[in-house]
Amino acid sequence: MPEVVVGVLGAGVVDPDVPLLRADDLGVLRGDGCFETVRVRDAPAGELDRLDKHLDRLARSAARLDLPAPPADAWRGLVREVVAAWPAPGEAVLRLVLTRGLEDAAGVPAPVGYALLSPVPAGTLRQRRHGVRAVTLSRGMPAAAHLDAPWLLGGVKSVSYAVPMAALRHARSVGAEDVIFVSTDGQLLEGPTATVVWAGDGTLHTPPPVALGILDGLTVRALFARAPDCGLRTAVAAGTVADLRDADGVWLVSSIRLAVPVVTLDGAALRSDPGLTARVQRAAGLCACE
Amino acid sequence: MPEVVVGVLGAGVVDPDVPLLRADDLGVLRGDGCFETVRVRDAPAGELDRLDKHLDRLARSAARLDLPAPPADAWRGLVREVVAAWPAPGEAVLRLVLTRGLEDAAGVPAPVGYALLSPVPAGTLRQRRHGVRAVTLSRGMPAAAHLDAPWLLGGVKSVSYAVPMAALRHARSVGAEDVIFVSTDGQLLEGPTATVVWAGDGTLHTPPPVALGILDGLTVRALFARAPDCGLRTAVAAGTVADLRDADGVWLVSSIRLAVPVVTLDGAALRSDPGLTARVQRAAGLCACE
Repeated sequence: MPEVVVGVLGAGVVDPDVPLLRADDLGVLRGDGCFETVRVRDAPAGELDRLDKHLDRLARSAARLDLPAPPADAWRGLVREVVAAWPAPGEAVLRLVLTRGLEDAAGVPAPVGYALLSPVPAGTLRQRRHGVRAVTLSRGMPAAAHLDAPWLLGGVKSVSYAVPMAALRHARSVGAEDVIFVSTDGQLLEGPTATVVWAGDGTLHTPPPVALGILDGLTVRALFARAPDCGLRTAVAAGTVADLRDADGVWLVSSIRLAVPVVTLDGAALRSDPGLTARVQRAAGLCACE
Repeated sequence: MPEVVVGVLGAGVVDPDVPLLRADDLGVLRGDGCFETVRVRDAPAGELDRLDKHLDRLARSAARLDLPAPPADAWRGLVREVVAAWPAPGEAVLRLVLTRGLEDAAGVPAPVGYALLSPVPAGTLRQRRHGVRAVTLSRGMPAAAHLDAPWLLGGVKSVSYAVPMAALRHARSVGAEDVIFVSTDGQLLEGPTATVVWAGDGTLHTPPPVALGILDGLTVRALFARAPDCGLRTAVAAGTVADLRDADGVWLVSSIRLAVPVVTLDGAALRSDPGLTARVQRAAGLCACE
């Protein structure tokens, strides 16, 4: 198995063991950049989940960071090259990263765009099957904090993920594997790398991203679009931790893990229905065989 | 004038034009790393402001990020090499950066530590002399958000600075140069890259860092230690925007800019006393000649 494949806009596939970013790249010094994570379903043949929507969201993140976004066609060409260079068949994780690069004297950046292909982590397959133990943690902000405050970068997928990563480490230190962030006024927000979905009365619920400044999840959108075919209604609606405790099922939904059932929350078992999880995972894009 | 000098722990001075960081370094992908900015007063002779305290704070940031911190002596040796390689006399900006690097299968990181020396930005000298126009912006969090929530990384100087950078860009878009963050419950916090200090009744004030989860500023500590010699009392005390409007002077205090007077706040002129600013700047470490 390869470690990773790296491709750079303007340069194509490069040696992944040769460093790519300068010591003074503002993406490194300031976490000033954005990214997307795309599921490759069938490398090296090249079937990707929702690449166009990921490229749209990457361009929106870049615009919010005042970063000139490379054209989508350039990304598509790079993605084809990188995926074709992947020697193992099946699933893989594709990251698209745009860092600010260096700024000139006038503050104009020279962004660096690259694609990074890596294996699906072993834990992902395990989590899809067996679920995760999650803890609720404060995100430190009231639910409405982001409204009229674009500099807080609500909904922007920036690379400044130190807090989500610290939250995941905190979860592991208390015997869990994942986190559900809540606002200081008790509203459900999102996971560090996933959208929260819960079921009740035959309806799947997820919090409203724009109102809460959380990421507008592409996988949850796909899941909700397909849910009616699986006999499930959907609702975008605010929720609380009590809603999760009362739910018929809770999932963390994201591009690579798809829909991972949350089996315990803050140490207490959540209701869990393997049949319902199977339907949710199918609607999220998981084949029966996976 | 050189662009930059780069030195790497374990490798010494390297070519700054050769990229240093891998595409899959977690410092790049996740903004997962920490840094310090140190003022070099007299390169290449090597006089540095408070290097030991900066190294202590870097080690504390690393511990909060569960990053193994390189020994202070290794950093000191690297700093000597990098500063000696700086060909221009006088002031320079030294950044010490520790990224998470790659993690092995067990999640153990292989951090990359490096030192980056660069010229003092032209704007810094101008701002010391003429001050900045600042705007107040919400940081989106109540003042007490960080208490009992270590995963929010209050007081940690991580490289995940996308929000402070976006706030500075927002300030520039409304005709200002800097920002003073306030909590959702109206308390003064800090600037994106500076500590806030204001004067009233012959006393310099600054907000309490630990209670607010803001950075414990090393320059403001030095300033407060020297202030009595300049005939100024000091107080660490919570404040509001009204306190700044009523103040006899407001400054943004940081390692490189030292003490920059805030001349307007949200478009309204603040009180300003050149004699008082001169005393504050002297106490912050600025020689009369600078």
